[in-house]
Amino acid sequence: MRVAVIVHLKKGVLDPQGKAVLHALNTLGFEDVENVRVGKEILVDINTKDREKAIKEAKKMADELLANPVIENYEIEVKE
Amino acid sequence: MRVAVIVHLKKGVLDPQGKAVLHALNTLGFEDVENVRVGKEILVDINTKDREKAIKEAKKMADELLANPVIENYEIEVKE
Repeated sequence: MRVAVIVHLKKGVLDPQGKAVLHALNTLGFEDVENVRVGKEILVDINTKDREKAIKEAKKMADELLANPVIENYEIEVKE
Repeated sequence: MRVAVIVHLKKGVLDPQGKAVLHALNTLGFEDVENVRVGKEILVDINTKDREKAIKEAKKMADELLANPVIENYEIEVKE
């Protein structure tokens, strides 16, 4: 089962990479773009067919390794 | 309108970051994890209410700046 862990900086935490992309997009002529946040999507293939188990495992992984709870939030999405 | 541009390395392109995360997860006791791919999720706020226009703009951004077409694929998702 493939699960996505999507990690973003919390609201209020400065995102210099996002700011850099915003500036670059504006410079390239994308003037409608108002804000950009850059995060990670980590696709994890877990050897189980149990959807609930996969979600539980993915949450544990996010808490233990994939996200920094001080500055980051995460979401879990089951892909297949 | 918020659009997500999700960028991943193409199949077959070595993903050392994914391999490192896989190894770390296995070491932490997540033995069911078989494969990990690490990509980016870029959230772009576009000042328009036209869904089609937002998607078209996001594709253009991905082609011009956000993804490297030689080694990366991208997907567009409208978030709101």
